[in-house]
Amino acid sequence: MNPHPKIQPLTKEAFAPFGDVIEASGDADFMINDGAAGRYHALCKVDADFKGGTPAISIFRAKRPAWPVRLTLLERHPLGSQAFMPLSNHEWLAVVADPVDKPTIDNIHIFRATGSQGVQYARGTWHHPLVIVEPSQDFLVVDRCVFGDGDTNNLEECALPNGGLALELG
Amino acid sequence: MNPHPKIQPLTKEAFAPFGDVIEASGDADFMINDGAAGRYHALCKVDADFKGGTPAISIFRAKRPAWPVRLTLLERHPLGSQAFMPLSNHEWLAVVADPVDKPTIDNIHIFRATGSQGVQYARGTWHHPLVIVEPSQDFLVVDRCVFGDGDTNNLEECALPNGGLALELG
Repeated sequence: MNPHPKIQPLTKEAFAPFGDVIEASGDADFMINDGAAGRYHALCKVDADFKGGTPAISIFRAKRPAWPVRLTLLERHPLGSQAFMPLSNHEWLAVVADPVDKPTIDNIHIFRATGSQGVQYARGTWHHPLVIVEPSQDFLVVDRCVFGDGDTNNLEECALPNGGLALELG
Repeated sequence: MNPHPKIQPLTKEAFAPFGDVIEASGDADFMINDGAAGRYHALCKVDADFKGGTPAISIFRAKRPAWPVRLTLLERHPLGSQAFMPLSNHEWLAVVADPVDKPTIDNIHIFRATGSQGVQYARGTWHHPLVIVEPSQDFLVVDRCVFGDGDTNNLEECALPNGGLALELG
């Protein structure tokens, strides 16, 4: 992946202002099932306004954008966290922004995740849709979903000014 | 995998009495992000007694048991669902039992999952710990976790009579 000055490795520490990193690193927190499995426990809590919504599990099948990728539109979900875990072992990019009302390119942070790293965006964190490097990649997603007549007002969008940010990744 | 008469393919229909199958099959339910991704939406709801517990995301690193596998102990979680999604593309077995107080071998159902199929055990469903075929396999897990002084009484176990059930899978 061609480096861009804004791209940094995904670590728990660097990502902390934006949410959690989901990965099994080091030793498991404890063993379960008579030692048959290690549990990396509660890597993130699912955070949601449960009134009118319920956490649910979905799969996103992402397609690689044309190169150069142009980051133009951010979104955030005021009513819940949103977790993404890759289901195939390929690098991908998690793009987030500082918690300001109108982010600009200067507020953007880009994290290069390995294929065994997921993230959970904290409730209300600005983020760009998944940017993948392979032609297609599936992600398990855990977020607040609405069934019936719950509050669906869980999406805010913000266009980046000046045409956004172009990334050359090919 | 050497067939056992109790092993059947994992399908949504056959697994329905025990929970949900998590997989992206066929076309996505709808497109998101200007067509950049397909969403297989809300494949299962996370079900939990939220009083005293919170859904959280963990990773289990399962180890392959010695062959033959002997299924001896089942467990169930009365306070919440438990979802497992493989993070590498290898077959595995989901073992469940009918909703009786003291399951016997006759109550056991064994489902062969592909490496792109996960399951969510419904709240209270008897199940065996993950049975994997590769030496090691990671699973993303979504279940009710307790932080602080919540109700931890979320595990019941049942030993299968007569030494359980032996599976030759090698």
